[in-house]
Amino acid sequence: MRKILVIGIGAGDPDQLTLQAVKALRSTDVFFILDKGEVKSDLVQLRRDMLDAHIQEGTYRLVEARDPERDRAAGGAAYSPAVGDWRSARAEIYERLITDELGEDECGAFLVWGDPALYDSTLGILEEILERGAVAFSYDVVPGISSVSALVAKHRTGLNRVARPVQITTGRRLAEGFPEDVDDVVVMLDAHQTFRRYADQDIDIYWGAYIGTPDEILASGPIAEAAPRIELLRAEARERKGWIMDTYLLRRHPRD
Amino acid sequence: MRKILVIGIGAGDPDQLTLQAVKALRSTDVFFILDKGEVKSDLVQLRRDMLDAHIQEGTYRLVEARDPERDRAAGGAAYSPAVGDWRSARAEIYERLITDELGEDECGAFLVWGDPALYDSTLGILEEILERGAVAFSYDVVPGISSVSALVAKHRTGLNRVARPVQITTGRRLAEGFPEDVDDVVVMLDAHQTFRRYADQDIDIYWGAYIGTPDEILASGPIAEAAPRIELLRAEARERKGWIMDTYLLRRHPRD
Repeated sequence: MRKILVIGIGAGDPDQLTLQAVKALRSTDVFFILDKGEVKSDLVQLRRDMLDAHIQEGTYRLVEARDPERDRAAGGAAYSPAVGDWRSARAEIYERLITDELGEDECGAFLVWGDPALYDSTLGILEEILERGAVAFSYDVVPGISSVSALVAKHRTGLNRVARPVQITTGRRLAEGFPEDVDDVVVMLDAHQTFRRYADQDIDIYWGAYIGTPDEILASGPIAEAAPRIELLRAEARERKGWIMDTYLLRRHPRD
Repeated sequence: MRKILVIGIGAGDPDQLTLQAVKALRSTDVFFILDKGEVKSDLVQLRRDMLDAHIQEGTYRLVEARDPERDRAAGGAAYSPAVGDWRSARAEIYERLITDELGEDECGAFLVWGDPALYDSTLGILEEILERGAVAFSYDVVPGISSVSALVAKHRTGLNRVARPVQITTGRRLAEGFPEDVDDVVVMLDAHQTFRRYADQDIDIYWGAYIGTPDEILASGPIAEAAPRIELLRAEARERKGWIMDTYLLRRHPRD
């Protein structure tokens, strides 16, 4: 039976690989690398560097494919269906890769930035392929250091305060309002710097981009004071690199 | 200047150490190990084994101290103050350890299970010591694989569903009601199996104890069906080992 490993490779710092992940890399016959196009080719290179650092050349095969274009224009209420279409398109590609490129007794791997459990579609796609039933395989997940963990470690702060909850959400959700009943909120996938809407409240922001890489940028402070700095840093970095990946924690102070 | 490293060492599987954590272990002169008493001495042993596996004997010192007793009898509304007292008591012990046992140019380390960012008091305690001003040091945080990441990896599921939020909270909070506006909830520090209160709802549970260790137990399913199994597994394991550490994800199905 074919075997698939979904390996979390950390948030960008190659030293964030776990010993378990390194062992998983070494037991892999075929790596599937999905290229999102030119803008993120540094990420593809970073993954290749990880393989070079930990596995002997000639002991594995590398299969590259092109990711389907996500229909970003859909936007708004259409977000979920567009994601569904994109996921199905991706599932078709993954299914072909597994069927055509992986031998019956071989082990294939998908390398996932951060932790495969957090805002990543790989596990959902594998389940979709298994449901279709055209190809059979077993799969395992190797957890990784998420960009969320990496962010707060760099800021030397916790995710939660004593005995209190923390919520992880998206920029789109934050635009609909600050979550109920929780004062520590981590925001991912925010292309619009939605934190600016809360600049009139007593909230601290802990922001970071390209965390763990040589391009890492960190900024923190009360939103009202930090937001203009972050806007500038973000615009400059995006201009320079062509893409940006950022995450932030919002910490609201008690209203007493 | 003295340096302190707060090193996340993963949820129990020694292979969950990151390469960064291994490097941090090797740059440490003095490890501070806080013993919570006999019941969790296997955890102390597991940490000693990690040091033995990655660092040469004779290149470091190990300083053991006894954790202050937490006033669990306080309970209820008194929870936060009791934690505060306990934290201050712990801060006094840590301050003495750093002052008495660590040379001016040395590096000391605290090893934290899981991720130091999640329901751990070490960062707060270090800040408290720095505020007191009796001893100066710099400190850094090495992120770790949390029990939350390890749990969902073993269950091969994500923390969040597509474009939706996830909340991480405590058993005590869950007892006050299912969190608003979120259908994926991770519960930590729950000694009372609070999930049983929600057995009448359409919610799946993904539960795990001693995750990543040889004693690992996993169970999942609709709460109504899984709860009796989990109660039994939990009682047996607790009886056998004398202590239990468990975590779970609740996934509520849409009410449409």
